[in-house]
Amino acid sequence: MSIKISAKANTKATIIQAGLEIMLEKGYSNTGIQEVLSTSGVPKGSFYHYFESKENFAFEIIHSVQESWVANNLPTLQDGEQTPLQRLRTYCDIGLTSLLTGQCRKGCLIGNLSQEMSDQSEVLRTALSHVMTARRDALAVCIAEGQEMGEISRSFPATELADLFDSGWSGAVMSAKTEKTVRPVEIFINLMFGYFLKADVQPMSHRYSAA
Amino acid sequence: MSIKISAKANTKATIIQAGLEIMLEKGYSNTGIQEVLSTSGVPKGSFYHYFESKENFAFEIIHSVQESWVANNLPTLQDGEQTPLQRLRTYCDIGLTSLLTGQCRKGCLIGNLSQEMSDQSEVLRTALSHVMTARRDALAVCIAEGQEMGEISRSFPATELADLFDSGWSGAVMSAKTEKTVRPVEIFINLMFGYFLKADVQPMSHRYSAA
Repeated sequence: MSIKISAKANTKATIIQAGLEIMLEKGYSNTGIQEVLSTSGVPKGSFYHYFESKENFAFEIIHSVQESWVANNLPTLQDGEQTPLQRLRTYCDIGLTSLLTGQCRKGCLIGNLSQEMSDQSEVLRTALSHVMTARRDALAVCIAEGQEMGEISRSFPATELADLFDSGWSGAVMSAKTEKTVRPVEIFINLMFGYFLKADVQPMSHRYSAA
Repeated sequence: MSIKISAKANTKATIIQAGLEIMLEKGYSNTGIQEVLSTSGVPKGSFYHYFESKENFAFEIIHSVQESWVANNLPTLQDGEQTPLQRLRTYCDIGLTSLLTGQCRKGCLIGNLSQEMSDQSEVLRTALSHVMTARRDALAVCIAEGQEMGEISRSFPATELADLFDSGWSGAVMSAKTEKTVRPVEIFINLMFGYFLKADVQPMSHRYSAA
């Protein structure tokens, strides 16, 4: 029985992984279920054995992307061996490397599906919104820690800096994907870390009193 | 003869406008040609009289969106009655009002299609990339003017600030669309104009000598 369950879970994970790869490049609407099944080597017709609908399939893909982010990216933002500013920089460097490796194709599934599906499916919009909130919350915690130790500007609340950081990053990745160059992402990194997040550029009049 | 040409041009413009509205909400792949024709009251089957293909139709829509931006938004960035910083702020306020009016649906067609189609169609990717470059160039000219008159930070080249401004704006609009709140856009505006663009937050060591 446990072997059966495990085999079923493996097949489902294989279909999700194949769907993720295809959806990342083609978007939701252009992703054909038959192509996903062919790629994953799963017999045709078995899709609805694992997923209620294409929407449910995309929901599970989003869930899997976020699980992978929690396992692989979140630890960087929580890494006690680095200062908060270093963690944010490492986090960006990992994203930049991934873009370069993929030759600026694909971008970020969460961003891609947000643009394509937010007005089309309330189920997917809600799932995407939860992912975005979780990521910004994690950025805000890291930024707040950097503010506490005086490494990051305290001119604005950590949650607002996290919002801008996330918006700027997402927009830069979107531009990189369209212009097929990582330059917008490099500029984002240079300005954020060379200037905007730095504590020493706070206007004196806005500075909090030292803790 | 001129009446015929004009009627044809009008019909084409009507189809483009209907296509724009539908594509803005549904994306490229989910936009059906029949729905576009029904909405615009044009007889079925006449689509290919006006457009070579669906891709060519989307290309013409992108072109029309940019023409409209040049007519309606670019003048704000060049308005001699306002200072450069005021122009940028008005430019953002117009965008924010548009998002609020549309209840955070739709977003920006250029951003939407960029995410969806950049890896699917080189024709559309190139068109979108040209639009993005033109917009960023216009932002950079305005920002450079503000730097010259000492109103905008000179810590970084105008082109790089324009890049960050554009990335941050696009990312914030994307978040607004997914989260169905303009809060990310408001935060972007607050931080950009309250802090990041302001000349008085330059670190002293980076400041250019006064002109």
